[in-house]
Amino acid sequence: MLSDAPLDNVLPQLNFSLITGIKHFIVENTRSARRFLRQCDRSIDIDSLTFYTLDEHTRPDEIAPMLDPLAQGHPMGVISEAGCPAVADPGTDVVAIAQRRGYSVYPLVGPSSILLGLMGSGFNGQSFAFNGYLPREKGERAAKLREMRSRIARERQTQIFIETPYRNNRMVAELCASLPGDMLLCVACDVTAPQASITTKTIAAWNKSRYDFDKRPAIFLLFS
Amino acid sequence: MLSDAPLDNVLPQLNFSLITGIKHFIVENTRSARRFLRQCDRSIDIDSLTFYTLDEHTRPDEIAPMLDPLAQGHPMGVISEAGCPAVADPGTDVVAIAQRRGYSVYPLVGPSSILLGLMGSGFNGQSFAFNGYLPREKGERAAKLREMRSRIARERQTQIFIETPYRNNRMVAELCASLPGDMLLCVACDVTAPQASITTKTIAAWNKSRYDFDKRPAIFLLFS
Repeated sequence: MLSDAPLDNVLPQLNFSLITGIKHFIVENTRSARRFLRQCDRSIDIDSLTFYTLDEHTRPDEIAPMLDPLAQGHPMGVISEAGCPAVADPGTDVVAIAQRRGYSVYPLVGPSSILLGLMGSGFNGQSFAFNGYLPREKGERAAKLREMRSRIARERQTQIFIETPYRNNRMVAELCASLPGDMLLCVACDVTAPQASITTKTIAAWNKSRYDFDKRPAIFLLFS
Repeated sequence: MLSDAPLDNVLPQLNFSLITGIKHFIVENTRSARRFLRQCDRSIDIDSLTFYTLDEHTRPDEIAPMLDPLAQGHPMGVISEAGCPAVADPGTDVVAIAQRRGYSVYPLVGPSSILLGLMGSGFNGQSFAFNGYLPREKGERAAKLREMRSRIARERQTQIFIETPYRNNRMVAELCASLPGDMLLCVACDVTAPQASITTKTIAAWNKSRYDFDKRPAIFLLFS
């Protein structure tokens, strides 16, 4: 689910038709899930649907009972807020339980800023790693950056990570201050929105550039 | 581009409308790219289009001149055969040159078996690595498996890799013979086709299972 782009831009028609057959949804946020489902199908009867909230406050023991409708033969859907469920977004625990219980799992095609960023970066797509957020503690953060540089050099593995959007500009400045000038940094910003920008430059060139990624959802990729 | 599923199942409407504005395509296979474009738009005038072939036989020095239409202001499209261009598919070199020349790059949403497999596996989606094909040489292959096991254990990093489809069954047998019984293996097979199957089991359970993934496109994922 992405809020900025028209749904037709980023989701295949199949998703809209499958959604109409599902009455039970595990969602990160009920309010925006309802809005999303109404956008998918204007004639949807929202009151006939059941929502189960799965977010950072959900306790592990609350997750398994959410899947009870499956035992009664009802298909269930998982909807997350910003990206693909279970990829840097909630959903993994639900899928893991469904797999353990032997239910069929069908992921639907949708936008992933990780994948779109990689496609647009020009970096190695035969070997890449997504690292989530970098550690905040200074020593751990420096160690993580060293490890990523080593894997770029030795394994030709593209390194991908994210940052809290209001810290994006500080992240670029930090990378400029700590990485060699010939290393390549790609910043992929608002990848599914009309103002999308995916820019690859050397650290030396970023150092001389003006940029402002403040509060815009962004993915960072490193390679050489 | 995927051949088995109806395009509406896996591509957003936006892709079809954007394609009609592009006359120059860099493609992995001209014949199937023509067929794909006809499926996208039945009224398309195929003879008005120019195709540039980019595959494993293309020499590096042949790639840069393919982008000449961009210098004349014409948008260009990149179409690969089995997955997302530039992610375990050709396209990276083209994108890298476009980035160096300062052109805008817009990746379009489409199915990636790597991402769909990860979504359906129940494995960690906050940290994961795609490793491409494992080395074929016995010693290197064993070393790569050890490294992946170490990264699962120490970093909780999901490990993803592929195999030539006619060797899929041998791959599962090899993993069963060499990994601990409590490790989790997910085989994600035909992920965008009606016969899709994404199955996560322990190595011990795979050892007792019947399976046949022969000649079916599959992604392998390991976690614990």
